[in-house]
Amino acid sequence: MDQKTYRVSVRLKPSVLDPQGKTVAHALHALGFDEVQDVRIGKLIDLKLAADLPDDEVRSRIESMCQRLLANPVIEDFHLLEH
Amino acid sequence: MDQKTYRVSVRLKPSVLDPQGKTVAHALHALGFDEVQDVRIGKLIDLKLAADLPDDEVRSRIESMCQRLLANPVIEDFHLLEH
Repeated sequence: MDQKTYRVSVRLKPSVLDPQGKTVAHALHALGFDEVQDVRIGKLIDLKLAADLPDDEVRSRIESMCQRLLANPVIEDFHLLEH
Repeated sequence: MDQKTYRVSVRLKPSVLDPQGKTVAHALHALGFDEVQDVRIGKLIDLKLAADLPDDEVRSRIESMCQRLLANPVIEDFHLLEH
């Protein structure tokens, strides 16, 4: 069956603290990368889907996947990336 | 001080199994998203850097950050994304 890959980014909202990112920023400083001012870490999700749905419907189903499982809409933003 | 944000993707190499992705794919099937054939999950790292270095040097320093800390080059690929 034909298939197509879609890429979704899931990142903490700008107002939400990111302790993982802070830890990585400290570690980069310790390694001498003094130019680092802030680090934020999100997820990059590659979805391989059967290519038998129209593009509009795929987008709305991916949004539903994000709302229901892939992201926590209270603290995270998600975007379908073009590529 | 002026600053600029760079975005780096860190993903498992295609030959490396992704149990987290498999689990998410199963969960999406359980929710009725039968079109999902495969899921792979990577990281998306936003680096906010002081903007006082030339772009070429920034790129080589980001590559060094990935090699030394942000990625495991044995099992992961990393890319500086344009945006």
